[in-house]
Amino acid sequence: MLYKTPICSLLGIKYPVIQGGMAWIGTCELASAVSEAGGLGIIGSGHARPEWLREQVRRMRELTDNPFAVNLMVVSPFLKDNLRMIIEERVPVVTFGAGNAGGYIPMLKESGIKVMPVVSAVALAIRMERLGVDAVIAEGMESGGHIGDTATFPLIPQIVDAVKVPVIAAGGIADGRGLAAAMALGAQAVQMGTRFVCSTECIAHINYKEQIVQARDRSTSVTGATTGHPVRCLTNRFSREFSALEKSGASMEEMEDLGKGRMHSGVISGDIEQGSLMAGQVAGLIKDIKPVKTIIEDIIEEAGSVIKKISSASCQEVAP
Amino acid sequence: MLYKTPICSLLGIKYPVIQGGMAWIGTCELASAVSEAGGLGIIGSGHARPEWLREQVRRMRELTDNPFAVNLMVVSPFLKDNLRMIIEERVPVVTFGAGNAGGYIPMLKESGIKVMPVVSAVALAIRMERLGVDAVIAEGMESGGHIGDTATFPLIPQIVDAVKVPVIAAGGIADGRGLAAAMALGAQAVQMGTRFVCSTECIAHINYKEQIVQARDRSTSVTGATTGHPVRCLTNRFSREFSALEKSGASMEEMEDLGKGRMHSGVISGDIEQGSLMAGQVAGLIKDIKPVKTIIEDIIEEAGSVIKKISSASCQEVAP
Repeated sequence: MLYKTPICSLLGIKYPVIQGGMAWIGTCELASAVSEAGGLGIIGSGHARPEWLREQVRRMRELTDNPFAVNLMVVSPFLKDNLRMIIEERVPVVTFGAGNAGGYIPMLKESGIKVMPVVSAVALAIRMERLGVDAVIAEGMESGGHIGDTATFPLIPQIVDAVKVPVIAAGGIADGRGLAAAMALGAQAVQMGTRFVCSTECIAHINYKEQIVQARDRSTSVTGATTGHPVRCLTNRFSREFSALEKSGASMEEMEDLGKGRMHSGVISGDIEQGSLMAGQVAGLIKDIKPVKTIIEDIIEEAGSVIKKISSASCQEVAP
Repeated sequence: MLYKTPICSLLGIKYPVIQGGMAWIGTCELASAVSEAGGLGIIGSGHARPEWLREQVRRMRELTDNPFAVNLMVVSPFLKDNLRMIIEERVPVVTFGAGNAGGYIPMLKESGIKVMPVVSAVALAIRMERLGVDAVIAEGMESGGHIGDTATFPLIPQIVDAVKVPVIAAGGIADGRGLAAAMALGAQAVQMGTRFVCSTECIAHINYKEQIVQARDRSTSVTGATTGHPVRCLTNRFSREFSALEKSGASMEEMEDLGKGRMHSGVISGDIEQGSLMAGQVAGLIKDIKPVKTIIEDIIEEAGSVIKKISSASCQEVAP
């Protein structure tokens, strides 16, 4: 049994599985594999230049005929150029990461582009819905990378109750149990980042993938809360150094200096001690590196059997 | 449709719904109502004296013939006396809160008492299983009161995979969607605290209950992380003062002094600004104060319709 929710029709995808838009490693290699396998692949732009992003979009079109998205960072210095390029290239879907995307939604909607911002709180979800977004990606604080305060379990139903647009659950999800649970909480799809890092197709360094595979439940920690931009990563020498600097009351400039280039050295060059290795608390649940198609099919199959199990085998009907 | 899992048979309860053991307000008034309604009521002992606790257990037996539990705090100065009393009174089930309960499990098990410790990490769950516990209550950091690091969504499946004993999910759960989602993640029951505070029967001050009803998704915050004992409460003047003191690098003694008596003044006397009001991130989902029986029946009914919905209505079978 395979499951299809209304958001699948909206986005034109086969399965309610969306890949998180990750800077550096959410390239067309990973995104096209996700879209080809029936999910929604997302090219993560981070602070990338418009030329690079345009090339990614064009290569994406060569690799798959299926729908895909581009994730934009509101704080990127190239945001406006990237928006123009996305409209020119008729990218079907845009997701927004860090920052308030409010001002950019109308121009994308007018160009017929679907917009799905990441939200970590009810108030922002309501604001985004008023601006006409097609769905919201509600992301719990167990997620990797930039995070909010509220965890997925209490966040999803509160956002589902507050908006009418479809809700995509993100944070803490890596398998079919997570997809089934997210649907029980009222989500129509899931977005996963950490799980897709550990795919054959993702260009992330093998050292980074292996660190996720070896991670346990408490292997991640959050740094940067004092800067207003908390980030969850695998705990390593760099995260401990950053944390110590933060506690010492260092200036924003000192912290930015220490953080410079760390993501590239971690996820691309594979420096597992001095690099920044973004990962969610779900890392402890990920035990293998496998092809994207297998990841997605395993999740869909497991979700089906989980739903079947909780609706019959493990439950007995009892007379009231 | 009503649902029964193996843990219901183990504990002799009708519904897989367990009330969190809360100090001051988890009295036999609330606990007996939960047990009478088919869940597992828990008398919360906190730092209470054995005489008070023995009286609670005896009154509990007058109020219900159904199974119930006592929650013990390992850090209580009266722990050993309470343990002796529990064995004498043949309390059917004991749950353990804050602290490592390892040393006390064998004596309870030898007396035929079922033991279910609260765990917030995989390693502790494994250690507790080795000591012969009957189940573990896996509690996410979105929970109210004393918390760990990991959120419910990623925590439950990681603990389910690590132990063979039944897992009860706690943290972030207040309705039937939460029960269905917890079961999808592999839990056999849910434990809820904040939801049961907002019951007619709970002796908590009405001001405290109303603060929960008015709460939103971001109304709670965590204090005490630097002491090694983080606690989640509704954000108010007291929590902000405590947080400021904590950031100023105050001594443990100063923090203890500031915190003294705050829980009583908050939850019993109803001082919503100067008292400590423990609550989970799920507070924003709780919109009413209603009888325990209605809370439990609503959850069971909603869980049933959610499971039905995700297994049929919202999902179409698609040819592979």
